[in-house]
Amino acid sequence: MPHSFTQLLFELSLILTAAKLGGLAARKVRLPVVLGELFAGIVLGNMALLGFGFFEALRTDPSLATLAELGVILLMFEVGVESTVPKLLAVGRSALMVAIIGVIAPFLLGFAMVRIFFPYLSLWVDVFLGATLCATSVGISARVLKDLGKVQTQEGRTILAAAVVDDVLGLIVLAVVAAIISSPQASTDIGIKIVVISAKAFGFLVVGIILGVTFSKKLYRWAARLELSGMLLTLSLTLCFAFAYLSRRFGLAPLVGAFAAGLILEPEHSLIFKSQERGRLEHLLLPLSTLFVPIFFLHMGMQVDLRALFSAMAIVVGLVLAAAAVVGKMACAGGVFSGNERLDRWTVALGMVPRGEVGLIFAGLGNQLRVNGQPLLDPALYAAIIVMVFITTAMTPPLLSHRLSRSMISNSQ
Amino acid sequence: MPHSFTQLLFELSLILTAAKLGGLAARKVRLPVVLGELFAGIVLGNMALLGFGFFEALRTDPSLATLAELGVILLMFEVGVESTVPKLLAVGRSALMVAIIGVIAPFLLGFAMVRIFFPYLSLWVDVFLGATLCATSVGISARVLKDLGKVQTQEGRTILAAAVVDDVLGLIVLAVVAAIISSPQASTDIGIKIVVISAKAFGFLVVGIILGVTFSKKLYRWAARLELSGMLLTLSLTLCFAFAYLSRRFGLAPLVGAFAAGLILEPEHSLIFKSQERGRLEHLLLPLSTLFVPIFFLHMGMQVDLRALFSAMAIVVGLVLAAAAVVGKMACAGGVFSGNERLDRWTVALGMVPRGEVGLIFAGLGNQLRVNGQPLLDPALYAAIIVMVFITTAMTPPLLSHRLSRSMISNSQ
Repeated sequence: MPHSFTQLLFELSLILTAAKLGGLAARKVRLPVVLGELFAGIVLGNMALLGFGFFEALRTDPSLATLAELGVILLMFEVGVESTVPKLLAVGRSALMVAIIGVIAPFLLGFAMVRIFFPYLSLWVDVFLGATLCATSVGISARVLKDLGKVQTQEGRTILAAAVVDDVLGLIVLAVVAAIISSPQASTDIGIKIVVISAKAFGFLVVGIILGVTFSKKLYRWAARLELSGMLLTLSLTLCFAFAYLSRRFGLAPLVGAFAAGLILEPEHSLIFKSQERGRLEHLLLPLSTLFVPIFFLHMGMQVDLRALFSAMAIVVGLVLAAAAVVGKMACAGGVFSGNERLDRWTVALGMVPRGEVGLIFAGLGNQLRVNGQPLLDPALYAAIIVMVFITTAMTPPLLSHRLSRSMISNSQ
Repeated sequence: MPHSFTQLLFELSLILTAAKLGGLAARKVRLPVVLGELFAGIVLGNMALLGFGFFEALRTDPSLATLAELGVILLMFEVGVESTVPKLLAVGRSALMVAIIGVIAPFLLGFAMVRIFFPYLSLWVDVFLGATLCATSVGISARVLKDLGKVQTQEGRTILAAAVVDDVLGLIVLAVVAAIISSPQASTDIGIKIVVISAKAFGFLVVGIILGVTFSKKLYRWAARLELSGMLLTLSLTLCFAFAYLSRRFGLAPLVGAFAAGLILEPEHSLIFKSQERGRLEHLLLPLSTLFVPIFFLHMGMQVDLRALFSAMAIVVGLVLAAAAVVGKMACAGGVFSGNERLDRWTVALGMVPRGEVGLIFAGLGNQLRVNGQPLLDPALYAAIIVMVFITTAMTPPLLSHRLSRSMISNSQ
């Protein structure tokens, strides 16, 4: 029995309690529960500033990070189960445009604003900071959609489909920027690289989903005939983990694969097991997400280092980046095709605002990259990215849920 | 996204598939599902012998070990939820005797048999090998009881209560043996040590359960008034993890704490949340155990190193140890008070047979302990303990479930 597992048990009881207290506090001030969980995470993760060094272990415990990763995978799988492939394809054109605009606009705007306001920074840094603004962190928006029962609205579907495309585009941006910065001369191969990366990623998604849609019901019928207890959930989770794994192997985020696995599964898959199982897949997944999803958001909050706020430079650059990040994603509203008048394009744009893990991964990469022997990002710029991530992540839940409730009222009228 | 998490996703899909295939194979030959899971684990864990070195990572992945540990904690918590404190106390006297006999008899028998058959081994080795036979690994028996719906029988309760006492006794034996072997002179303090260890362990259990029984319903009523979604499960799991943590802090196995937490919770606790939750606590725990419990048994199987079978010495000593282990625990049947004629004492004795993690922990310790600069256990003796663990663990599910079905028939007549 290693010591770290004992530690994990303590951390889990602490985190589950903090999650509920955070949710409670958020509800008191009429904010979404997920924001309460994020703030609870920020508090726990920064107790070291108040002299409680003990909590530092929470931030860095790899077991907790693993459970948090499982949390976001289960969340996206759940959201995927609520969606279906045809309904997602129906918003495909809008989603594609939203994703493309949502990558290009924040990049250009971020690059331009940093160039104008901080002309003394090197061109590479400007490019890099612009690139950190590209990728949407879909977890936050997915959670808000789910908590409000809005996954199956046109807006919800558009956000989720755009997020999948966005992940592929983010991958391309990351590869291009890293390639340019590490060897600016060899930029002739970049075109080929882009084609390869996108072909791999989209190829996996298309082939995986087609195979899944074609064979999954046969597989489920075969499995149901075995009459082993717990088969529906076990088989579905196997599919989820396998897709998440393959997704990663093809360069995408695991949560994109988990979402795709969920997409394949439809209510009919649960009905195949009707006589043996206690409930439909959604009901079986609920206890898993009740345990794991808050761990993800608490953990995300813990990664926000409030020491970033100790530097005026970090705050100023962070605010500029956040402004570019938000305004850039608002341009996504222009990408929504107005075939359906009921579709609220600002809801979709808001859903694309949060930047999270991917922004932080980028920031970490910027810390490692070296230009002329110097790290590309100095600590203040690294902190500025954290400020931007914090602002875009924290502002989304209240604004998005407010907007969703509004459009619900106007829809029902 | 660390590489190890990608690896974990692959491992999870592999393990869940292997668990179901193992369960299926076991059912074909009319053996309990858990045995199929154990064997699937043994196969996966020993693929390296066939040249598939890749699978070696499964055995040693710390994330997987963490999920396995969570699995046995959730299993014992579930089993605890099915039991209640008064019903467990009702079999207290039998359980105490069963546990005491179940520690002393295998120890003496093991010590004597090793002395007689292998007189060239040192006295310390004999003492140590005897000690490895003491502790029951309750996970296997708990799973068989649960799969057959027998947790609430007198036999089931006696086995579970005895296992709790057994863990305290195992702790004492471990401390005494380690103390004697590392400094044979200072054995005067051992009496005090035993008193302190038992007072701490029993004190925690008694105080924890009394506090839990007294205050938990008040806590649940308060929590229900908050009307936050997922509260019943989150609160219950918090209690489970907190008890498991404290249990470890007081020297006991975490699963004993998880079982105690489950004991405190009764059907009334679920009814408090009746209007808000989708089901009772048992139903909410089911998907969690469906995912995690097989990981535990597969992982347990993986720890069995078949290379142990390559040594004739290991097999011979292992068979002798296994014989002592089984016959010693059969003496437990004598500890069952025959107030209730329906109680089948051989079922109880069989339930105490499996040796698992604790035996392996002991074996690991024996590898580290040094007497006159030499390791206490040579590799063959270490392998012998693994053989003993394997035999006692693998024989229990079929025999116990056969006996339970028999006594069910005689009960219903």
